Amino acid sequence: MASPVTPTPLLKDELDIVIPTIRNLDFLEMWRPFFQPYHLIIVQDGDPSKVINVPQGFDYELYNRNDINRILGPKASCISFKDSACRCFGYMVSKKKYIFTIDDDCFVAKDPSGNDINALEQHIKNLLTPSTPYFFNTLYDPYREGTDFVRGYPFSLREGVATAVSHGLWLNIPDYDAPTQLVKPRERNTRFVDAVLTIPKGTLFPMCGMNLAFDRELIGPAMYFGLMGDGQPIGRYDDMWAGWCMKVICDHLGLGVKTGLPYIWHSKASNPFVNLRKEYKGIYWQEELIPFFQGATLSKECTTVQSCYKELSKQVKAKLGKVDDYFNKLADAMLTWIEAWDELNPSAQLPNGK
Amino acid sequence: MASPVTPTPLLKDELDIVIPTIRNLDFLEMWRPFFQPYHLIIVQDGDPSKVINVPQGFDYELYNRNDINRILGPKASCISFKDSACRCFGYMVSKKKYIFTIDDDCFVAKDPSGNDINALEQHIKNLLTPSTPYFFNTLYDPYREGTDFVRGYPFSLREGVATAVSHGLWLNIPDYDAPTQLVKPRERNTRFVDAVLTIPKGTLFPMCGMNLAFDRELIGPAMYFGLMGDGQPIGRYDDMWAGWCMKVICDHLGLGVKTGLPYIWHSKASNPFVNLRKEYKGIYWQEELIPFFQGATLSKECTTVQSCYKELSKQVKAKLGKVDDYFNKLADAMLTWIEAWDELNPSAQLPNGK
Repeated sequence: MASPVTPTPLLKDELDIVIPTIRNLDFLEMWRPFFQPYHLIIVQDGDPSKVINVPQGFDYELYNRNDINRILGPKASCISFKDSACRCFGYMVSKKKYIFTIDDDCFVAKDPSGNDINALEQHIKNLLTPSTPYFFNTLYDPYREGTDFVRGYPFSLREGVATAVSHGLWLNIPDYDAPTQLVKPRERNTRFVDAVLTIPKGTLFPMCGMNLAFDRELIGPAMYFGLMGDGQPIGRYDDMWAGWCMKVICDHLGLGVKTGLPYIWHSKASNPFVNLRKEYKGIYWQEELIPFFQGATLSKECTTVQSCYKELSKQVKAKLGKVDDYFNKLADAMLTWIEAWDELNPSAQLPNGK
Repeated sequence: MASPVTPTPLLKDELDIVIPTIRNLDFLEMWRPFFQPYHLIIVQDGDPSKVINVPQGFDYELYNRNDINRILGPKASCISFKDSACRCFGYMVSKKKYIFTIDDDCFVAKDPSGNDINALEQHIKNLLTPSTPYFFNTLYDPYREGTDFVRGYPFSLREGVATAVSHGLWLNIPDYDAPTQLVKPRERNTRFVDAVLTIPKGTLFPMCGMNLAFDRELIGPAMYFGLMGDGQPIGRYDDMWAGWCMKVICDHLGLGVKTGLPYIWHSKASNPFVNLRKEYKGIYWQEELIPFFQGATLSKECTTVQSCYKELSKQVKAKLGKVDDYFNKLADAMLTWIEAWDELNPSAQLPNGK
């Protein structure tokens, strides 16, 4: 099934890079050869009076809290403050088909031969080739050069489905929760697993926002990172929340989600004590969230991401509101998010966001 | 979650190696350092008058067609003749807890550092550590040294479930169907993917019998390789059939199935023209088999592998009998297989085969 080897299109005019603040300018210098061709959207997560000096040569727009309040008015309440969850504002203001989002403590990783990994190029490959959510291929991504579907893979499923999300991984500091960080402070991820695979239909996974790309037209409105940070009872569940909502909707709409390559180099672990404070409610709430998302079904009438998302927000209110009042607020914010999305993206309300 | 680094137990007295005939004695010489500690069960797939000269130093028993007929009597009809599917007779006569089965054109592969891969040791590791079928871990097997469950993985699911099957892969000649072999005669698998992962609950995959291990006590009676070869309308679906039945039953009983490491070196491609003749009916029947298995549910009363398998055989007859009369024969053979299994394994009829 592998197509002849053709260079991966760069999609220069079709992809925005969204970064939730930049505390370390080395970050942009290191990525310069890969990011400079693209437009950057920087969403400053904290004090708007702090100045971020973006080095020369980058094409960017920068939004701080004042900008978000000005652009969204009262609807700005759905965007988190003092938390990297604010990055989803960047997804909303982008006008491009694809988004790549990355944290500022993620650097260029090296492959086992010692070459710099062009993470963006791999994400683009992942997004431009189909996914296979209905049957597992034991040689992993069948569309990759040098491989294919194995014996016993149904032929009717070999066209695959459109890929909505490409979830990349991390070498060095693994993305662990606070308890695991505390128990294993020295663990580092040194294993380069040379694979991309589709997360099967009906299976949930922990989507990390550190190194993530998606097709905004196919799934953008589902990529809401929730209410975290300032004034909220939890943190570090922003990307998880988006991942669970997104996966339920992709399964419903027949879209694909891939995980695996590309790797970035995650340079430093966040403070496990701070993380524990942010996470602890999430850790026990999650025990009710997962069965909720595993059991969530959407009605046939939901044919757009927006309508799926609105229906999901109703179910969140009905079934998770009793877990904690936070989920009532979150369900309301989900609706506000969709209203704001549609306001900023008036043409994107057609079926499947096209 | 990784336990402290302890040597993998060899399970010398708890594992049999089942080989469907041996046409090439180099095979055993190459595996000698790894296989010699174990008992081999060789099931000769063709003419019983041909002699297989097993080299000195191996502890083995060998069954040919005459032996199978003598041991099973009329029930021998459920064991394929002139096809490697006959190997499942070896699963039945074994008295051990674990089975490793391998084809005689599979040799010792090398890891990226050039070291010989001890495939059996990796299978044992896979079988002795739990599986995680209810949620996908993005860093793959969380029980492996140097890794763990990532942020957002529900804590209640971190104990995992018992692993029933370990499906290994192949370097060099990939396990392709005849059409793919014909289209891509020169494709070789050179990619060493350093991962083991659990196939999620509800997801089917193409299980290849070339390099496969399983816990006979947990899942043995489901590992029936069907009716192939002499007098049958299809071939090369023996392991596939076993894989689909096995996966439905593992999902029902809460058992785990892993795929990935270990690799073996698959030395030669079988003849694609012969394969096409064996496969072509399977290729279109399969389009009805997959929806059948994807939709199959077993009743709560099915608490043993045997009872699950018998219920599945009824469903095969009811729903696939109309696809072709072959499936009526196969459904009957499935029942005969269970009868023969229970006859040879009288103590294995307690819940979960224990």
